[in-house]
Amino acid sequence: MTTTELTSSLISTLPGHYYTDAELFQLEQQRVFEEMWFCAVRAADLDRPGAFRTVSVGRESVVVSRNRAGEVRAFLNVCRHRGARLCTEEQGQVRRSFKCPYHAWTYDLDGGLVAAPNLASMPDVDRAAQGLIRVHVREWLGYVWVCLADEPPSFTETVEDVVAQRLGTAESITNYGVDGLALGRRISYDVRANWKLVIENFMECYHCGTIHPELTEVLPEFADGYAAQYYVGHGAEFGSEVEGFTVDGSAGFERLDGVTEDQDRRYYAITVPPQVFINLVPDHVIVHRMFPIAVDRTLIECDWLYTPGIIESGADISRSVELFDRVNRQDFDACERCQPAMASRAYRAGGVLVPVEHHIGEFHTWLADRLADTVQ
Amino acid sequence: MTTTELTSSLISTLPGHYYTDAELFQLEQQRVFEEMWFCAVRAADLDRPGAFRTVSVGRESVVVSRNRAGEVRAFLNVCRHRGARLCTEEQGQVRRSFKCPYHAWTYDLDGGLVAAPNLASMPDVDRAAQGLIRVHVREWLGYVWVCLADEPPSFTETVEDVVAQRLGTAESITNYGVDGLALGRRISYDVRANWKLVIENFMECYHCGTIHPELTEVLPEFADGYAAQYYVGHGAEFGSEVEGFTVDGSAGFERLDGVTEDQDRRYYAITVPPQVFINLVPDHVIVHRMFPIAVDRTLIECDWLYTPGIIESGADISRSVELFDRVNRQDFDACERCQPAMASRAYRAGGVLVPVEHHIGEFHTWLADRLADTVQ
Amino acid sequence: MTTTELTSSLISTLPGHYYTDAELFQLEQQRVFEEMWFCAVRAADLDRPGAFRTVSVGRESVVVSRNRAGEVRAFLNVCRHRGARLCTEEQGQVRRSFKCPYHAWTYDLDGGLVAAPNLASMPDVDRAAQGLIRVHVREWLGYVWVCLADEPPSFTETVEDVVAQRLGTAESITNYGVDGLALGRRISYDVRANWKLVIENFMECYHCGTIHPELTEVLPEFADGYAAQYYVGHGAEFGSEVEGFTVDGSAGFERLDGVTEDQDRRYYAITVPPQVFINLVPDHVIVHRMFPIAVDRTLIECDWLYTPGIIESGADISRSVELFDRVNRQDFDACERCQPAMASRAYRAGGVLVPVEHHIGEFHTWLADRLADTVQ
Repeated sequence: MTTTELTSSLISTLPGHYYTDAELFQLEQQRVFEEMWFCAVRAADLDRPGAFRTVSVGRESVVVSRNRAGEVRAFLNVCRHRGARLCTEEQGQVRRSFKCPYHAWTYDLDGGLVAAPNLASMPDVDRAAQGLIRVHVREWLGYVWVCLADEPPSFTETVEDVVAQRLGTAESITNYGVDGLALGRRISYDVRANWKLVIENFMECYHCGTIHPELTEVLPEFADGYAAQYYVGHGAEFGSEVEGFTVDGSAGFERLDGVTEDQDRRYYAITVPPQVFINLVPDHVIVHRMFPIAVDRTLIECDWLYTPGIIESGADISRSVELFDRVNRQDFDACERCQPAMASRAYRAGGVLVPVEHHIGEFHTWLADRLADTVQ
Repeated sequence: MTTTELTSSLISTLPGHYYTDAELFQLEQQRVFEEMWFCAVRAADLDRPGAFRTVSVGRESVVVSRNRAGEVRAFLNVCRHRGARLCTEEQGQVRRSFKCPYHAWTYDLDGGLVAAPNLASMPDVDRAAQGLIRVHVREWLGYVWVCLADEPPSFTETVEDVVAQRLGTAESITNYGVDGLALGRRISYDVRANWKLVIENFMECYHCGTIHPELTEVLPEFADGYAAQYYVGHGAEFGSEVEGFTVDGSAGFERLDGVTEDQDRRYYAITVPPQVFINLVPDHVIVHRMFPIAVDRTLIECDWLYTPGIIESGADISRSVELFDRVNRQDFDACERCQPAMASRAYRAGGVLVPVEHHIGEFHTWLADRLADTVQ
Repeated sequence: MTTTELTSSLISTLPGHYYTDAELFQLEQQRVFEEMWFCAVRAADLDRPGAFRTVSVGRESVVVSRNRAGEVRAFLNVCRHRGARLCTEEQGQVRRSFKCPYHAWTYDLDGGLVAAPNLASMPDVDRAAQGLIRVHVREWLGYVWVCLADEPPSFTETVEDVVAQRLGTAESITNYGVDGLALGRRISYDVRANWKLVIENFMECYHCGTIHPELTEVLPEFADGYAAQYYVGHGAEFGSEVEGFTVDGSAGFERLDGVTEDQDRRYYAITVPPQVFINLVPDHVIVHRMFPIAVDRTLIECDWLYTPGIIESGADISRSVELFDRVNRQDFDACERCQPAMASRAYRAGGVLVPVEHHIGEFHTWLADRLADTVQ
């Protein structure tokens, strides 16, 4: 059947080749992940000047660090001389400079070239021009967001407003005080599926009744298939018997200081395309960062955040972690079950979205705009 | 040297790139394996309604099953909604329907969409149009043959007549009562060679004297290099001291009921392109199915079939299995030895076929016809 | 920044895609490794007629052997009949012929077709035309060099003169009597980097002070970054406290018979593009052969050669082997650190060469000439 035959209850997904075409994936890396704001590392993981993390942003390795004034800086992880990787470790700490391990070209914490063997005998070398290539940075919600574009899009419009539009107001997210929370647990997932399957999965709850028994127990309205992201400002309500957002519905922790009565006993899910998912519940926040590394493979890092007091006290967070860890595994299994079928002739024109999934079409439109060969 | 210099004893093989070009392999998948009748699964492996097998046909995963009336049905293994694989197991049993594990879209055993969450609220959805995509099926010789083409070629012309032409008459195969036989042993081989090397190997016996000591012991005329498939209707005769088609020439079993005097003490090999080899001996039948999965990799499933009485009695079939298992391993080793050299400049224009191999040229012509860019 | 902005101290390297583009690598295989003289195997490893080695030259497998007269012969490792690999072992010994294990086509030690099943019944087959495809061979410095080109370039101009130009005179290499030395140790390295990164590394010593502590201890002038290959005829002098070219500067062996006073206590490094590095020190010689096998992977075989007397006596060569084995590992680690960054946007136009590296530019010019689409 072709898409023109679809009745009003059904709209088309993307055609299958969007999930399997390696060249299209390269274009997505270029136009999406290397041009938009990308949530790269947790700011608190850079706890002093010279602390650094290396992270894959699109097809680039980026070093994120702090300068001597404590400001966040990010650079392409490539020495300007002969192209060696400056940092090969995932994380580390330097004193006052990054020194290339090949020929000892040395850069200060703002990226400037400050030393190299024989450099004194090459007075014509412009140390500024030979500095590390800087990448734009922003801090928000306790994360460092980077952008590889020469002229980044508006952070407000492409990140902050997306969150505000989902929640209904700009203040709603502020209530959770996310940037003051502490990391309770981080779990990494290696998913053999295209990144768009992961986003599409996160955006709808039509599958919740089939694959998420624990989640629908806590959020009974999810059993009907209506997505948390379907209505602006709507958060799914906890079941009447449920005490907390935990794997068995048992009590969690005190609600976060700024969380309002309206927000209490509710779950909000937010997608910030292209690679961030945020889940808000009264006593903790869950942040997913996706790292697409191949057309059929996506790494996902998921952080569970609590008040510093809870973490310092050594309180048991395992029941809340286990709930969403199970949800994640159920979701990623589903994505991996779809990936191989994307190449089938049965999916050449794509599949269909039912009414409670129709808003995924907005993501497809958003993507088409990003890939269109025009000036932004 | 070029092919024009060849003397009459020698004709050319295909050029080397036919065995190494990944794009050509995709074209073969499309024009050969996805358009012709493909011997997919053993019919007896589907022993009741809802029993299913999943099998790779060309580049597609196909579910083969039986409906409630016991009739064989085959479908592309892709849910019409969001493209999840319906069945990920190689085999299994459902009660009355296939239910997608992602969003619970449910199809009856004839492929029709019969249920889905909220389906009642989508009355405009055409359940027939959203059913699983059906694939053509035929049963013959106890196997289910499928065809992915919209309009399959004639089964009689492309399968049955090929067997009849090799054996000389249409009745010859009937005598063996293959569809009444039982599976004695199945061995799977993972061969790192292009599927055409496997076919070409099977079609000639010029190599028998070099690599098949056990086989030439049983069939002395094979030592001279004349292929079983060279003469229409000819079966290679057992050596005078040989009692049965076994690894040591010891006695096998009673000859099959319908096998004639003419067929007794003879071995017949039949190639049904593109992916089936059949070996007939008086007391058992050996059927190979090839599954090409990459330009340089082919899976082969080989079944040894005996009368149900022999299998039920628990008689020792190991000596007849061992004979052809050894032949298979010897052949596949040879194919794997050729594969890497196909990319050599020494094989750019191909190699040569000696007179007892000239009939392989007919396979090359057959393939060229299939790949030609014309309506069949 | 673009290359036009570079000041006179800096010149450009090759653009990054030269190190990552798989198609360019195929062109290099064709125009460089399959057209130039290639140092393939050690002549002494072929110690009698019928002894053979198989070796990868460009994209081809080549059998190198000796005929009954003891002369070196080399052939493409492909049977002319159906393309089987003739020899799959890395080394071996045949009596008087190479017999294909598939159909028993048999070739004498000069490559002529001498036997095949049924060959007598095919009198029109030209045995000369169906012989193995011969490859040009030369012996020099105790190695067999092969060339796959129909018309090889001048061995004198492209190999011998390169060594003479580096050392200043043609006699300089002769003094070391390399072809009379014996193999003390062979170490193979599997380097995940493009072959050009390995050559460029070998050509400069700007990195020595950073990554080669043992080497700069023995050759103090290397700490200043001046490459052994920078001045014609110049050999780096041993430090005044150094007794020998060993990992701890302890004494090595007697100097080789022909080595002159001028050459004593000095280290000479020679690059013979595309794939040979030679190191000369007074008491031994180190020869590297590179085998590029993928755009990002290079195998390197390194031989340490001493007088036959030293090897026969069982003298301890471990301290001299350890020195350059450490240097090799330090160098190859650096190359592997560069490879992933070659794909970065930061290296799209390449990096820079400082004055003591400018001679690497000559290698780049040499390569450009080889790749240019003109008659040699």
